[in-house]
Amino acid sequence: MFPLNTDQLAAQVAARGILDISTATIRQISSLASAIEQVAGEPVVHMELGNPGLPAAQAGIEAQIEALRSGVAAKYPNINGIPRLKEAASAFFKAFLDIDIPPRTIVPTVGSMQGCFTTEMLLGQSKPGCDTIAFLLPGFPAQVHQAKVLGFKTTGFDILKHRGDALEAPLRALFEQGNIAGLVYSNPNNPAWTNLTERELEIIGRLATEYDVVVVEDHAYMGMDYRNRFGHPGREPFIPTVAKYTDNYILLCSASKIFSYAGERIALVCMSPAVFDRHYPYLEEFYEMPTYGDAYIFGVLYATSSGTSHSAQYALAAMLEAATQGTLDFVDDCSEYGRRGKRAKEVFRRNGFHLVYADDAGTPISDGFFFTAGYGDMPSDELQLELLRYGVSAISLPSTGSKHNGLRICISTMGSDELFEMLDRRLARFHADHPISVAAEISRQQVQ
Amino acid sequence: MFPLNTDQLAAQVAARGILDISTATIRQISSLASAIEQVAGEPVVHMELGNPGLPAAQAGIEAQIEALRSGVAAKYPNINGIPRLKEAASAFFKAFLDIDIPPRTIVPTVGSMQGCFTTEMLLGQSKPGCDTIAFLLPGFPAQVHQAKVLGFKTTGFDILKHRGDALEAPLRALFEQGNIAGLVYSNPNNPAWTNLTERELEIIGRLATEYDVVVVEDHAYMGMDYRNRFGHPGREPFIPTVAKYTDNYILLCSASKIFSYAGERIALVCMSPAVFDRHYPYLEEFYEMPTYGDAYIFGVLYATSSGTSHSAQYALAAMLEAATQGTLDFVDDCSEYGRRGKRAKEVFRRNGFHLVYADDAGTPISDGFFFTAGYGDMPSDELQLELLRYGVSAISLPSTGSKHNGLRICISTMGSDELFEMLDRRLARFHADHPISVAAEISRQQVQ
Repeated sequence: MFPLNTDQLAAQVAARGILDISTATIRQISSLASAIEQVAGEPVVHMELGNPGLPAAQAGIEAQIEALRSGVAAKYPNINGIPRLKEAASAFFKAFLDIDIPPRTIVPTVGSMQGCFTTEMLLGQSKPGCDTIAFLLPGFPAQVHQAKVLGFKTTGFDILKHRGDALEAPLRALFEQGNIAGLVYSNPNNPAWTNLTERELEIIGRLATEYDVVVVEDHAYMGMDYRNRFGHPGREPFIPTVAKYTDNYILLCSASKIFSYAGERIALVCMSPAVFDRHYPYLEEFYEMPTYGDAYIFGVLYATSSGTSHSAQYALAAMLEAATQGTLDFVDDCSEYGRRGKRAKEVFRRNGFHLVYADDAGTPISDGFFFTAGYGDMPSDELQLELLRYGVSAISLPSTGSKHNGLRICISTMGSDELFEMLDRRLARFHADHPISVAAEISRQQVQ
Repeated sequence: MFPLNTDQLAAQVAARGILDISTATIRQISSLASAIEQVAGEPVVHMELGNPGLPAAQAGIEAQIEALRSGVAAKYPNINGIPRLKEAASAFFKAFLDIDIPPRTIVPTVGSMQGCFTTEMLLGQSKPGCDTIAFLLPGFPAQVHQAKVLGFKTTGFDILKHRGDALEAPLRALFEQGNIAGLVYSNPNNPAWTNLTERELEIIGRLATEYDVVVVEDHAYMGMDYRNRFGHPGREPFIPTVAKYTDNYILLCSASKIFSYAGERIALVCMSPAVFDRHYPYLEEFYEMPTYGDAYIFGVLYATSSGTSHSAQYALAAMLEAATQGTLDFVDDCSEYGRRGKRAKEVFRRNGFHLVYADDAGTPISDGFFFTAGYGDMPSDELQLELLRYGVSAISLPSTGSKHNGLRICISTMGSDELFEMLDRRLARFHADHPISVAAEISRQQVQ
């Protein structure tokens, strides 16, 4: 029965070997939440892990099964990616983002986790002295963890107070350090579900060119800013991207969320031709490969996994083709996340919570996969543990690089009325047990 | 038409951006061989890339298809591996190697390429000052490349002159350096197809315990020493392993060759409980995880790909189960490689070639997936390029860390009489055009 007492919770945290809750990985939090369910004898409301929560696109499943029947399991996949996938991807980016990326510079990876890990790895090696990966914060904690594991330094700044034109000054200051190997962010933002405006993308692109920094733009949630109707092939509005404003870009595009295909670990790294064909003297010597793209494919991807599941490449190719042909509306298929996000926000707000990242340079943020929730001035780790004690699991904002108190709330698996009612009951109980002082609330609002 | 002239060949090498043929990756050589086919207008005999060359095990394909139909594509795989796979693997190692590894210390990876990459990475971080990965040489070049890419030092020694009891002295000297993070080798050996004797495994295990070095034993070609009949579940002879002689081991076991499942990139990293549960102060601080096993799963595997194809895990589980139940005889299924190896060796020998690594401490080596071929005293890179000019592609021994001249010959895709006849014709032409001097041959035999 929730709430557990504090000793019960502390025992589970200790038993999982978690030394600091605020820096635990999402997978560790998820594992902790599962253990707590056993103790409580009832389910936790899982809002920590971004599992798709929708069925996988059928076009992918059928194509993958057909590929398996045709015998691809016996053959190493071409490490470059199968031609059909590369061509489908190129057409997909033209249809939905209105950008030109040739097939030869698009490569499949074992999810965007591998895509980002390997990209950070090679960018961090490309220019001696540029040993720091920069992030727009808050960000996906795993991507910061990747840089750390690779032995690189990390930096970045919290965008909350730097939206619109105000983005330029801190970004310029960052790039002026001269040690930035790449700038990583996801758009829509994980965890805040903010979306960069065209003005902000222009600033990022312009400075990336000016300071020769490669931008790594993660499109994990492509098209899921439901304030616009994206996803009609070849028609405006096109999905915003920094690729409109610089040649210094690498896009990450995962099938995990847009096609609900997370289980098969399949994604794309899309290098601009300028990045792909770039000569770096250090890479030429170290990998004995003439270009960044060759070093990436034959040096790094080969070393890390020797390519990506052969059958899953056929699945992704088929899904991209169906989307481009207009027979698979991936934006509409995922719009359920918008509805769940809207409803979950209402439940949190009704029970005393506030949005931490609430708007895009003045416009209220979209409803979608995530949002950020604070509670009075309660510190993040306390809020995370207390809410877990009441049977609701989420990850803390400091673990995402935010300077602000609060949690990342993921709504993806909120697939039933019962779950929303359970959430409402538990938050109401939490709210009743934790009165927000008027002074704290005023102080919080003044900070915002 | 083969042979090409030297200018035609040089142009293709340059066009592929290959700066040094002796250090080019296998994938680059494979790509070069494909380009040369275009120029020659006839197929190259591909003996460079270890593609399975047999159909994938049907039990795997059926299980993978069933898993896809049941909806696993939509769900992130547990990064620990699905319980069914972990349990099947534990039973498999008991049945065929007669060793006890519990399910909890067995984890799936994206092929043994990821298994080795991530293992080297974590071993190289575990003990400050131990920044060098050691290899028994010759070895699989990709595993040495992995250590280099990760920024570690590499070392090792050529086993040709150090078989049997003579293995102990150089291994002790290596471990006495005090900077060895792990010792990596594959058994059967890639590229030489030597097999370590029980006496040699005992020496390795004993010294690994004495010097606290973790042994990474790659079983890519498990059971394929056809001088013995392995592969009857629960019955002797059991497949030899260092796990009999030390607790300081990690086994790599890939589905790529033993089940001809290379396309799906699925393998297992099997840590001894002693390694899994080991506390390293540095890992505890860096990853905030108490044990090596936790740091490996939640810190490293999470960062590199967030797990392994969900459906392929079901495939591997089903294949391991079928093998343990005796309905899938993976050793017999792969015995075709022994026949192809025997026949290819005869063709090479008939045309003036000799085996470079010819015996296991006095006993002639097994016939199998690879063998090593030298030609008089012709240097390796010259032999590789000349043979390619005549339409036969292989990789050079120096690229595998060998000190000796010659090539690694892979017989896996020699699936027809026509291919063997083509090989014979081309080697005969090569032999006729390149007389071996008697002096060179005597000199070579004196060195052996």
